[in-house]
Formats: sequence, C-alpha cells, structure tokens
Amino acid sequence: MSVRDEVLSANEKYASNFGPKAELALPPSRGFAILTCMDARLDPAKYAGLSEGDAHVIRNAGGRASDDAIRSLVISHKLLGTSEWFVIHHTNCGMEFFTNELMGDLLEQSLETAELGPEGFRDVGKSPGSPAGREIDWLTIADREQSVVDDVTRIRNHPLVERTIAVHGFVYDVESGRLIGVPAATAAGAPGS
Amino acid sequence: MSVRDEVLSANEKYASNFGPKAELALPPSRGFAILTCMDARLDPAKYAGLSEGDAHVIRNAGGRASDDAIRSLVISHKLLGTSEWFVIHHTNCGMEFFTNELMGDLLEQSLETAELGPEGFRDVGKSPGSPAGREIDWLTIADREQSVVDDVTRIRNHPLVERTIAVHGFVYDVESGRLIGVPAATAAGAPGS
Repeated sequence: MSVRDEVLSANEKYASNFGPKAELALPPSRGFAILTCMDARLDPAKYAGLSEGDAHVIRNAGGRASDDAIRSLVISHKLLGTSEWFVIHHTNCGMEFFTNELMGDLLEQSLETAELGPEGFRDVGKSPGSPAGREIDWLTIADREQSVVDDVTRIRNHPLVERTIAVHGFVYDVESGRLIGVPAATAAGAPGS
Repeated sequence: MSVRDEVLSANEKYASNFGPKAELALPPSRGFAILTCMDARLDPAKYAGLSEGDAHVIRNAGGRASDDAIRSLVISHKLLGTSEWFVIHHTNCGMEFFTNELMGDLLEQSLETAELGPEGFRDVGKSPGSPAGREIDWLTIADREQSVVDDVTRIRNHPLVERTIAVHGFVYDVESGRLIGVPAATAAGAPGS
C-alpha cells in the first residue's frame, strides 16, 4: 500500500466515526495556541492534552518564532481570540545538528537527502544542486534553552502582539515525554484594560 | 485551573505512560510530511493516522506554502529523508474571511481581538493599534481549491525542492472529517536516478 493509500485508509476510519466533531466552532474553545517543532516524535495534541476544537497548533522546523509563525499567532489572537501562547522546542532537535553554512554547502552539492554519519551530514547525491540555499536563514539552534528565550522575547516584543497575551516557554524531552519549563522564557501578559 | 496548569497536568499523564516512545529515531519512520492549517478542529495525527515518530507535521495559518513552510519541507527532505508531501487546506478556514486590507485596518485600530458579527470582523478594542500589519502578506484564501493548487505548484517549482518528491493536494472537510483530493494539485515525483 502506498503512503497516500495508507493515509486515505486511516482517514476513512477517522471520518466514519466523526460524530459531534462536525459541530465544532472555528475559534479555539480553550483560547490558546502552541508553537512547536515539526519533529515526527512530537504529538502536541497528546503531549498537551488537546481535543479537536481546543487550540491552535503552529509547527515548523524547530518550533521557531519565524515571521510566518508570528503571522499565524497574530491571526490567532486578533481574529480568533487566543490569549495565551506556548513556545515549545525539544531535546535532540535536528536543528541543533547543522548550521546555515553546512546547509548551503549540502544543497549546492545536490538536492538529494544527505547521509548522516558519525562526522555529521555528508552529501552523496548525484542530481544537480542549487546555490539558493545560501540565501535562506535556516533558523538553526545552537543552545536549546536560549532558542526558547529568544523566540519568546521576539514574540513578546513584536509590534503586532498585544501586551496582555501570556507567552510560556518550554522544552519537550523526547526521551520522557515531559514538558520542562524555561523560567527565563515566560512572559506574563500585562493586565488587561 | 489555569490553561498552563491544565496543559502540565495532561502532560504529566502522557509522560507517565511514555513507554517505548523514548527510543524513537529522529528521522520520520514513514518518510513523509504533512503541511496543514493551525485550525483547532484539525488533528492531523488523527485524521491521517499518525503515531509518534511517523511523519513531519508543519502547520501555519491556512496551511500555506509560505517561505517558512518551504524552509521546513527542504530540511525535512534534505536532512531527514522524507520523499512524499501532503498539502492539506480545509473547509470553513478562517483565512477565507478576511483580506490583507481588512487585517491592516483592524490592526491599525487596536491589537485586541476583533468581534465577528454578521457583517464580518469589526474592531472594538481600545488599546493602541499599529500600522505594521499593512506590511505583511497574510496569505488569505479567496478560493479553497485554487489555494491548494497554488501551494502545490509553488512547492513543485521551488529551486530547492528535488524533482523526485511527490506532492499531494487535499482539502479536509471539517464537517465530515474527510480528506478530499484536489486532482489538479497532485504533482507526482519524477523517477529517481
């Protein structure tokens, strides 16, 4: 069975028992949003206890507060009423294992998947590469707790983010499933007017 | 109980029964990635049948192929080996209910949550707004199927995306839980070398 068929078969099973989820409203019923990594080991609905309809979930490589994540968060508050946000990075994140320079090198050699050996990523591809990777900030992570602090700070200080929104920083431990608070990365919301 | 305490209490329950998930590898075991919307009603792990470790999940407002989503997808393939991608937008998406101009207006009036009435979003906030929203492309959606086609096309033609990657376009129906294929938005991967 192809991946596409597997996905559609799992979806058929989910939809056949959809029940009252058909009636859920668009705005998140629990009024919060999570920004976290795309990593396959993370299931934010499970690790944070979300049911369908509860909360916005934004994910990208690293769970970084990119311009696009901030676009999503601003929409989440301004149009859909969330007032509390969680920034959740994690241990053993792929973003810790490369730099902008290495990614530029690898993509210039080929677009194929690189091999990960004891000395790091190494390109073995034969198809043509592209220099376009050098123009991108890949938002890699050098220090896990610092990246949470940086992202919470960037969100907190963004001109389109209301001061009353609370922003919490966490690291998810992929070996235990636990959320570990990053105290320096928690920005309580200012009192409402 | 605060939202933060609720999340931590749910997390405690999840982590206390973590079991073999502690041993999962970083690269997605099923070799694919999903790009979908942050909408609270969508649970991609459930609607597509994912277990922890299976697949990358990238989410933003609309499930759009933004520069940041493409950053994530390129990392997903180049460093972590995914070779098949799903772009999944959905019915009743919030991104269909506003325009760049309206969002600019609303944010200039205040940063507080707008009210949604029968005539659309309306600002009722009293705290200061910001003109910075006018400089952002909010990636709104005027036509649901066309947005899937546009995003699959953008990904397919990106200079950093390898030609062998298959890209599938779908719309998720929030009233039935079903994935509906968008045939014009499926770009089979070219044969490998």
